[in-house]
Amino acid sequence: MTNPCIIAVAITGSVPTKADNPAVPVTVAEQVESTQAAFEAGASIAHCHVRDDAGAPTSDPDRFARLKEGLEKHCPGMIIQFSTGGRSGAGRARGGMLPLRPDMASLSVGSNNFPTRVYENPPDLVDWLAAEMIAHEVMPEIEAFDLSHVIQAARMAEDGRLKRPLYVQFVMGVKNAMIADERILDIYIETLNRFAPDALWCAAGIGPNQIRVNEWAIARGGHTRT
Amino acid sequence: MTNPCIIAVAITGSVPTKADNPAVPVTVAEQVESTQAAFEAGASIAHCHVRDDAGAPTSDPDRFARLKEGLEKHCPGMIIQFSTGGRSGAGRARGGMLPLRPDMASLSVGSNNFPTRVYENPPDLVDWLAAEMIAHEVMPEIEAFDLSHVIQAARMAEDGRLKRPLYVQFVMGVKNAMIADERILDIYIETLNRFAPDALWCAAGIGPNQIRVNEWAIARGGHTRT
Ligand SMILES: [Zn+2]
Ligand SMILES: [Zn+2]
Ligand SMILES: [Zn+2]
Ligand SMILES: [Zn+2]
Repeated sequence: MTNPCIIAVAITGSVPTKADNPAVPVTVAEQVESTQAAFEAGASIAHCHVRDDAGAPTSDPDRFARLKEGLEKHCPGMIIQFSTGGRSGAGRARGGMLPLRPDMASLSVGSNNFPTRVYENPPDLVDWLAAEMIAHEVMPEIEAFDLSHVIQAARMAEDGRLKRPLYVQFVMGVKNAMIADERILDIYIETLNRFAPDALWCAAGIGPNQIRVNEWAIARGGHTRT
Repeated sequence: MTNPCIIAVAITGSVPTKADNPAVPVTVAEQVESTQAAFEAGASIAHCHVRDDAGAPTSDPDRFARLKEGLEKHCPGMIIQFSTGGRSGAGRARGGMLPLRPDMASLSVGSNNFPTRVYENPPDLVDWLAAEMIAHEVMPEIEAFDLSHVIQAARMAEDGRLKRPLYVQFVMGVKNAMIADERILDIYIETLNRFAPDALWCAAGIGPNQIRVNEWAIARGGHTRT
């Protein structure tokens, strides 16, 4: 490994609520506080979702702006990554915060099943989000939930819809999408190297798979996410 | 190869219209006629979509019943496979013809992108279609548009939602889904063998990829589709 391992922290996903776990940070102030703790412990990327007053996922640019402001103040130098993925079905509203120019934003380039629904990323929305990221100089983190997503991202880099080098996250262990499996991780890496040899990658294991996937990724020189 | 190669013929997909190609068989009579020609040329499975009077894809059980009747009369012994996939978004209507007890029916077990839209197969609909196929003794042909679909089918066979042995078709070359690629075909086969060692498989290359994919599949002992 010639480059240091990047550790990303996802403080609040789009699924858990206070009812699931009272420790889940939901307000912007809570998010800033717990991100700061992770930052001081060595995390370098903050993967950010925001919630509305009722605790439901939102893409409200004002919320994202307040979170960005808080993180810039309390975690200086931390890479801020906004999620564009938390509200499947919401269309272009999912990218309404990109003009805030976060350092990075997540980008799904294909569709797949989630535990109870379809995670919808129609081709025209994917292209629009990618174009917005180029326009606002936001670096995408490609969220690969299946093998074709890796190849699709490489194609988009080839034809100019995405900038190189790609930064791809292999997401493993989401029910009804790709499982967490060491051999599959090797297949992902092989395929990415074939189609986008200059790409960087990381791997995320969801829920109980987190530690295992982190270990596999680190052993292969990838980055990780908690 | 210990078993004979199965050649399936898909006479009418859900996309082409008479405007694209006047030779596309659209009425039931036209479909029976051209399937008979393929049957006499050696095809053993008829993969069937039906159209309404305006030429639009439909799942109308009456249409499927008439097609089945015509095929049974003119192509005795041919395996009749109904498509449950041609009308993404239509919900359980997609399986309304399964009580007709065709020999087989196509079954997608995950979602993915198509050229201009999301091919939606939500988890609850997948489970319902699979249960209907078991209830009416219809053998599914699993349509794998991405690698996780192969593993998902194996899981469904493990927990009883599908019967063994699985019959899986790797679909390659659909824009925005998996590309047609020989190495990826090997990865599909390896993964299927790992998770469902008793499964049978075939491969379909869409459009200009058809011949190439057929050649790769035959060389590896798989079945093919035209
Ligand atoms: Zn996220
Ligand atoms: Zn990451
Ligand atoms: Zn079909
Ligand atoms: Zn087939």
